[in-house]
Amino acid sequence: MNDLIIIGSGPAGLSAALTAKRRNLSFVWFGNKNLSQKVLSASRITNYPGLIDISGEEMVDVFKKQIEHEKLEIIDKKVNNIMRVSDKYMVSAGSDVYEGKTIILAIGVDNKKSIEGEEGFVGKGVSYCATCDGMFYRGKDIAVLCTNKEYEEEVEFLAGLVNKLYLFVTYDTDIKLENADVIKEKPAKITGDTKVFGISYNESDGVEKSIDIDGIFILRDVIKPNTLLKSLAMDGNHIAVNRKQETNLPGVFAAGDCTGRPYQYTKAVGEGNVCIQSVVEYLAKNV
Amino acid sequence: MNDLIIIGSGPAGLSAALTAKRRNLSFVWFGNKNLSQKVLSASRITNYPGLIDISGEEMVDVFKKQIEHEKLEIIDKKVNNIMRVSDKYMVSAGSDVYEGKTIILAIGVDNKKSIEGEEGFVGKGVSYCATCDGMFYRGKDIAVLCTNKEYEEEVEFLAGLVNKLYLFVTYDTDIKLENADVIKEKPAKITGDTKVFGISYNESDGVEKSIDIDGIFILRDVIKPNTLLKSLAMDGNHIAVNRKQETNLPGVFAAGDCTGRPYQYTKAVGEGNVCIQSVVEYLAKNV
Repeated sequence: MNDLIIIGSGPAGLSAALTAKRRNLSFVWFGNKNLSQKVLSASRITNYPGLIDISGEEMVDVFKKQIEHEKLEIIDKKVNNIMRVSDKYMVSAGSDVYEGKTIILAIGVDNKKSIEGEEGFVGKGVSYCATCDGMFYRGKDIAVLCTNKEYEEEVEFLAGLVNKLYLFVTYDTDIKLENADVIKEKPAKITGDTKVFGISYNESDGVEKSIDIDGIFILRDVIKPNTLLKSLAMDGNHIAVNRKQETNLPGVFAAGDCTGRPYQYTKAVGEGNVCIQSVVEYLAKNV
Repeated sequence: MNDLIIIGSGPAGLSAALTAKRRNLSFVWFGNKNLSQKVLSASRITNYPGLIDISGEEMVDVFKKQIEHEKLEIIDKKVNNIMRVSDKYMVSAGSDVYEGKTIILAIGVDNKKSIEGEEGFVGKGVSYCATCDGMFYRGKDIAVLCTNKEYEEEVEFLAGLVNKLYLFVTYDTDIKLENADVIKEKPAKITGDTKVFGISYNESDGVEKSIDIDGIFILRDVIKPNTLLKSLAMDGNHIAVNRKQETNLPGVFAAGDCTGRPYQYTKAVGEGNVCIQSVVEYLAKNV
């Protein structure tokens, strides 16, 4: 079993991975091969100690070289769920499950609001993972909120399973699917009783429209932390941590934007580093 | 008056200075032109995100280039004392006094033990600053503990004032002064009643020897934080801070090794960055 599973490949995740290697931990690192969309799109960074007045692209480039130099591997799968099972954690990513004694969440922050009703229906018709839950909707009618071209593969997978698909997109795309209506709006509200039965949205002319559905898949870059890992304590929109980056769950640590402001690369790398010290202490005591 | 005074030029102080500039604060930065003896003497650093497998010397070199590029200025004076006066802080450095609305302590950590008796006699015969307190010992007999060749100028200054000087050195030196006995041992104990009257040490053969003195100057790289700034709350050997890097004193923040383990450059830069966010919040509320 792995000592550690790191989730996220922004500056906080990278910092944790570099120090985990140096501390000789066995670990698996999940993230995006492009590391961080946020860093990539930064214009100039003038206050990161050691990198003099660089662009976000240059920063990502240096980070990629460092990852290669240190022979670190990023597993480019989306983590859908984390479960505590006795004294370890099970991480489901894509269609595989990984086990770790400890977890570092370096998953960034999503400042976009949830859809009204979203949180109450998680597991009752709201899903974040096409490959995990798609089969439950074979032959049914579903909605999908797709926020990034990268997830269109998942949309196509779902279209192949279901009867009718209402595809909400928040970016420019020319995706066409036989059984899908493409709606260039955001869903406004998810409705249901013991499970989801409808979704509404506002058309461009302001008229509210409702559709009957059996479920909705929400494909976002960032999953809300306490959706990913149940009973994780939050502080507003952020994961609650102390100075050791400990969360309320034993063996689970968090670093970077997901723990709160300032949303700065320098703060993120610092917290990623501190996490490893805490992981090492935890392993020494508990395993 | 300055918005901010940063004390220390290791990675934490540098990170604070870079971000202070970016946030447009008016500030003064005290430190050593060589930045950090600790960084300089590091062999290989393989876990600092963005600097790939470098030596301590190379890291200092990059930091110096960045300081030049960002037109930051380090004032190479030793800070001797910080005092709160109404709602601001007075920092005495060398023979000058600087005023700031806020303070960031990035002063590193000294793991060397105090001399027995040292803490009880601060201001009663124990001094950390030759230029500040030398005049009080004109014509008297003093001891000096010198821990670094850099401070030999201060030793010479003192030798020119006093009658007899007992110079304890903890490094290799060939310093010679007419009125000084050079003792290549550490002082063991400072003795006195309402003020210092003696010092003892163990000779190389183990025999304890006592000397009558009127005072002792202790010239160390790192001054204990609560000696520098009275009533600063400590947590053991470290400055007590919360997640915002706030100390118990309003407007005083701390970052880097002085706030505790891990003693890592990456952790230090992160904390230096967070300090600026807290300084900005403090200034918005209090000034």
